Amino acid sequence: MAMIGGGKDAFIGAVHRIAMNMDGLVELVAGSLSINPEIAVESGKMLFLDEDRIYTDYKVMLEKEAAMPADKRIDFVSIVTPNFVHFEPAMMALEKGFNVVIEKPITFTLEQAKQLKAKLEETGLSLLLCHTYNGYPMVKQAKQFLKSGALGKIRKVYVEYPQGWLSTYLEGTGQTQASWRTDPKRSGKAGSMGDIGTHAFNLAEYVTGLEVTQLCADINIVVEGRMLDDDGAAFLKFNNGATGVLMATQIGAGEENNVKIRVYGEKGGIEWKHEDSNTLLVKWLDKPAEIYRTGAGYNGSFAAHSTRVPAGHPEGFLEAFANLYRNFALTVSAKLEGEQPKEEWLDFPSVNEGVRGMAFVENMIESGKSDVKWREFTL
Amino acid sequence: MAMIGGGKDAFIGAVHRIAMNMDGLVELVAGSLSINPEIAVESGKMLFLDEDRIYTDYKVMLEKEAAMPADKRIDFVSIVTPNFVHFEPAMMALEKGFNVVIEKPITFTLEQAKQLKAKLEETGLSLLLCHTYNGYPMVKQAKQFLKSGALGKIRKVYVEYPQGWLSTYLEGTGQTQASWRTDPKRSGKAGSMGDIGTHAFNLAEYVTGLEVTQLCADINIVVEGRMLDDDGAAFLKFNNGATGVLMATQIGAGEENNVKIRVYGEKGGIEWKHEDSNTLLVKWLDKPAEIYRTGAGYNGSFAAHSTRVPAGHPEGFLEAFANLYRNFALTVSAKLEGEQPKEEWLDFPSVNEGVRGMAFVENMIESGKSDVKWREFTL
Amino acid sequence: MAMIGGGKDAFIGAVHRIAMNMDGLVELVAGSLSINPEIAVESGKMLFLDEDRIYTDYKVMLEKEAAMPADKRIDFVSIVTPNFVHFEPAMMALEKGFNVVIEKPITFTLEQAKQLKAKLEETGLSLLLCHTYNGYPMVKQAKQFLKSGALGKIRKVYVEYPQGWLSTYLEGTGQTQASWRTDPKRSGKAGSMGDIGTHAFNLAEYVTGLEVTQLCADINIVVEGRMLDDDGAAFLKFNNGATGVLMATQIGAGEENNVKIRVYGEKGGIEWKHEDSNTLLVKWLDKPAEIYRTGAGYNGSFAAHSTRVPAGHPEGFLEAFANLYRNFALTVSAKLEGEQPKEEWLDFPSVNEGVRGMAFVENMIESGKSDVKWREFTL
Amino acid sequence: MAMIGGGKDAFIGAVHRIAMNMDGLVELVAGSLSINPEIAVESGKMLFLDEDRIYTDYKVMLEKEAAMPADKRIDFVSIVTPNFVHFEPAMMALEKGFNVVIEKPITFTLEQAKQLKAKLEETGLSLLLCHTYNGYPMVKQAKQFLKSGALGKIRKVYVEYPQGWLSTYLEGTGQTQASWRTDPKRSGKAGSMGDIGTHAFNLAEYVTGLEVTQLCADINIVVEGRMLDDDGAAFLKFNNGATGVLMATQIGAGEENNVKIRVYGEKGGIEWKHEDSNTLLVKWLDKPAEIYRTGAGYNGSFAAHSTRVPAGHPEGFLEAFANLYRNFALTVSAKLEGEQPKEEWLDFPSVNEGVRGMAFVENMIESGKSDVKWREFTL
Repeated sequence: MAMIGGGKDAFIGAVHRIAMNMDGLVELVAGSLSINPEIAVESGKMLFLDEDRIYTDYKVMLEKEAAMPADKRIDFVSIVTPNFVHFEPAMMALEKGFNVVIEKPITFTLEQAKQLKAKLEETGLSLLLCHTYNGYPMVKQAKQFLKSGALGKIRKVYVEYPQGWLSTYLEGTGQTQASWRTDPKRSGKAGSMGDIGTHAFNLAEYVTGLEVTQLCADINIVVEGRMLDDDGAAFLKFNNGATGVLMATQIGAGEENNVKIRVYGEKGGIEWKHEDSNTLLVKWLDKPAEIYRTGAGYNGSFAAHSTRVPAGHPEGFLEAFANLYRNFALTVSAKLEGEQPKEEWLDFPSVNEGVRGMAFVENMIESGKSDVKWREFTL
Repeated sequence: MAMIGGGKDAFIGAVHRIAMNMDGLVELVAGSLSINPEIAVESGKMLFLDEDRIYTDYKVMLEKEAAMPADKRIDFVSIVTPNFVHFEPAMMALEKGFNVVIEKPITFTLEQAKQLKAKLEETGLSLLLCHTYNGYPMVKQAKQFLKSGALGKIRKVYVEYPQGWLSTYLEGTGQTQASWRTDPKRSGKAGSMGDIGTHAFNLAEYVTGLEVTQLCADINIVVEGRMLDDDGAAFLKFNNGATGVLMATQIGAGEENNVKIRVYGEKGGIEWKHEDSNTLLVKWLDKPAEIYRTGAGYNGSFAAHSTRVPAGHPEGFLEAFANLYRNFALTVSAKLEGEQPKEEWLDFPSVNEGVRGMAFVENMIESGKSDVKWREFTL
Repeated sequence: MAMIGGGKDAFIGAVHRIAMNMDGLVELVAGSLSINPEIAVESGKMLFLDEDRIYTDYKVMLEKEAAMPADKRIDFVSIVTPNFVHFEPAMMALEKGFNVVIEKPITFTLEQAKQLKAKLEETGLSLLLCHTYNGYPMVKQAKQFLKSGALGKIRKVYVEYPQGWLSTYLEGTGQTQASWRTDPKRSGKAGSMGDIGTHAFNLAEYVTGLEVTQLCADINIVVEGRMLDDDGAAFLKFNNGATGVLMATQIGAGEENNVKIRVYGEKGGIEWKHEDSNTLLVKWLDKPAEIYRTGAGYNGSFAAHSTRVPAGHPEGFLEAFANLYRNFALTVSAKLEGEQPKEEWLDFPSVNEGVRGMAFVENMIESGKSDVKWREFTL
Repeated sequence: MAMIGGGKDAFIGAVHRIAMNMDGLVELVAGSLSINPEIAVESGKMLFLDEDRIYTDYKVMLEKEAAMPADKRIDFVSIVTPNFVHFEPAMMALEKGFNVVIEKPITFTLEQAKQLKAKLEETGLSLLLCHTYNGYPMVKQAKQFLKSGALGKIRKVYVEYPQGWLSTYLEGTGQTQASWRTDPKRSGKAGSMGDIGTHAFNLAEYVTGLEVTQLCADINIVVEGRMLDDDGAAFLKFNNGATGVLMATQIGAGEENNVKIRVYGEKGGIEWKHEDSNTLLVKWLDKPAEIYRTGAGYNGSFAAHSTRVPAGHPEGFLEAFANLYRNFALTVSAKLEGEQPKEEWLDFPSVNEGVRGMAFVENMIESGKSDVKWREFTL
């Protein structure tokens, strides 16, 4: 495969490489690793790429790779550039016949996301959208457990993502991550809602298997001088009648990435939190709560498939990320070989999640501005 | 003192008696313990009251006690009846010159709460409103710590109270607690918002020292057949510009009384949860989070005053409740003796909290019905 | 009842009074509250004792109370003096026909404990030994759960009690608690082993229902200048073939009273810790671990009997202490009225636990000095 | 590099491959992956090895690789065979000039470990012994923190490793892991003490920087029919006068791999547990305990060097394992290029830890049999 973006000065590119290396299913053989040609070349060398597959322009790369014989050319590209450079390379890659891995948010605008969706349907290619929280074994267990109906109808969802790293005017110091994530030109309409709100939203829909139909948002810019929202919350209504509350903030001083989801059904509830990612609590109306643990024999097939070591050996963020890549790679492989991917392999976030994520951002921002309480979740 | 309500078939009366017994400052000497005369008498005997101070009508009791010589008559009454029988006995007690302890919500309507407030101002008597969560040492520590300014300006408040005991149509079984708490005639306009939402609201205002100025509520009846809300949430705006989210539900199947509050300032945040009530987490932007513990020497004067045993000996709900009674008793005593109560003694919830709590209920219910997003918090 | 010791300058006396007040079953009517006559009198007045029942000599008190008519005299005495003043008043009280509550360790020497045991058997009176940890509802649940055989044969016991308060040479500062607890003349042969080791030992025997038959101890004086052990550990062998490890230290800097017990059987294990005293973990070989909680409906009769408030309202140290008193008072009452106390009421530590506790101390100290590994647990 | 053992039917081989893949510093190019030639070949193909570097005999592999030109031949071998096939391949690899990675325990006997040590000193080559717990960032932070002297002299160490997977006679079912780990012919003198006791021992010495000088062991076979110990404990004495308790069991039914270490100094203590591996608790005598977290800016250089993602993204067992490999690879690389490895790179367990680990096993087993309490820790 090939990578677009992710040069030596980038953070998320390195994470992608660890994730794809983990299972030995994927090999990085080409790259257009930076818009800065020097960095692109230097990064390619550091990663032991053949010199003729180190590119300084992704368009050239996609052209050249597409022209190679099938057994040599790449199978997919990973796009790890900032939000505003997602759409064009993704669309071009699809047009050239390559599968695509893409960081979230999928595109800069909802409209672009829909275009990608159309192109994917047209081509039959696969796309992986990196909603990492979906990759945790106990999140998968939560989803499968709720799907089993063990808790009855789902009634209430609480999902939250407090972070503290934007508690100060960090973009004023020139810090890279803060600078582009708070810049409307590079991040789009939303700051925190696009950056972490989408994760919370996606997690809620993924775990419950439900879809949000209406929302009411409170969107705030807390730190003086900031140009995009750094805090927000929403009431949610789901398509089965359940309601929910979503909270996401980047000014929760002292918080790391404390994603947490609680779902309540008629007979009990589940609770998962990122801080203790290998545990899933299952609470019951009439009996003791249960502690499900990664790697244990009683877990369902989705969690089991996404676990690498026995119970008691903590698996973390990189393994969750690698689970996305593994399922994507297994699916792409199967399709290349004309086989039907297993149900567990197809369990990775893709363009539908991307379209809904972009719609979430747009609906949140619009609702945040509005005096009317409820807003239809429009796509 | 004397008790109104709280006979042998009631739950909360027993809690009050344990709380007032704990420090030996208060003696129960009279009671009108039930509207059922038989139960009233039987309960009085079980509590070793003198027969001539066992009453079957609180009005008679207040009359007779008021007629006794000062050194013999009661100093205060505790009213532990259901919501709809709070106002009249409280007002009559004040008129007769007795201080008052009252279960929350303070009255049936906001208007009544305001009348009590006026009466208290007129008489100079004291009233304790039993917002128990205020009595936990680490909640007091949170308040004092935030007041010190150590975290800078407060920016964000998350407060939540999930319970699960009303996940089924329990009132249909005739269960006592469920029956009156879900009955508009006995509970008033709100179910969950009055029962537990007010606790969450009070905790947020108590800990932060701020006041809510606007809110936007989502109010739900989840269990079929129920007549009052059993679930709700609100966005909050505070008088210093901070925002917040409040969540309270009684259909969080599998939850006990998981009150939790998080407050974020410019430099860090605090977190307290009822499940681990002797711990206060203090989180910082740039250094390790700290674990404050009940009974430790580094706590402030408010927590220290409200601790009975050395660090490492868990204190619980009854001690928190007793802390309310102790401060109230110390304050009443001091005032009787013409002394100025200490600042730490005056730290108990009273009629202002009652008025604001009733206003919270009314504003929540009104906002829940409205299509307009934000509502002024009106008193 | 009457109290011996526990004047206004003592800590544990106040704890006893709160504990006995909690349920309204016990009334303090007499006291010999200090060896210092002034403090004795002053303390008695503070506690609203009748002047003629404030004594300055416990012998006089026991004589006079014994001479009173049955309906007026005390039913029992609580002895809350330091270790070395336990035996004589306890023996005299029994001889005068009074039941006895006594702080642990029961006596100064094992021999004295045996004499008390003989006297109790002779008189048929009751004695409560204040091993508070036995009073926690979830400890009782652990005992009853293990007794049910749900985990099969018990194989391994880990019990620990780390404290940090004697990490410095505190007795050098004259601090009261540290001074007598580290003084051989007042504490006896052992420091930490008598003070907290006995709690750990008792908890292990109480929860498992087993008896230690052999031990091997490592006993240390860590802080320079100290005269008694402040740290120790033991390997244990139980009468069913199980083994165990006991750890108790007072130099675990930064620890509060982190009592913890884990017991493993053939099919699973239980874990209880003082820091989270309302939770009992039950772990299973083949299914998710379960979280038992104080107040929940699924608990057994022993825990249910010892719970005052609904699940989710934390109960703490004072409630555990009060549970001892309540069971003792219910038992004494029943016996006075010629009734058979219920099984749940009889569940309080008494003289057998006292004799075994004293034997534990002696065996630990002897084993600590010995080069031979295993020592029979001799009584 | 090349691997010996670790074919497709082995567990730990896969873990090694993930660990070495994680940072892209190491490439598996040759292997003698099984004693079963078919499995060896099949496994080699699955791992995309060149056919001429898939071997069925490690001796042949080491001969052939040694004969290759320096720029083509392997730099090191990873030996992931069972205990009794560690020594010969390791010794031969060293003799052929290859660096060595080896699973723990390092050899079958202490004597063999000493021979490896001598050979390493003779050749100047490097050896990595896979004590994974040393690789966790917060374990490194604990070590560096204690080394700084912030807690004063170390006084007490508690280290424990409860597991439950051998609670039944699993070897009777033919389960692979259980079969060789409980077989004296393949595991050596010890079962649990070699398998997990050594981890606990190593962790204690690593974190404290101290060495055990004396011990007293209780060694048990709990499950009927088992041939080697499945449970044990030890009192420890360290070379600075501190004492400790070590507990390791494989019959702790319901436990996973709950490694935990607590160390107390004069001013405070640290606590790390595997279940919450990204947290290090620092407890203080006089101020609130602190929560150190992986990835935070305040950590020392050793933890910082061994962290791949920002604070709040959990790192787990595979990352810890990869940290061992990374440091080893960086050190080997530096030495190959004639550079001095950095202090942080040299922080990996090696032959000294291997010799001490083997000595621990021998001393534990001998002490377990002895009636004398204390045994010198002999090498």
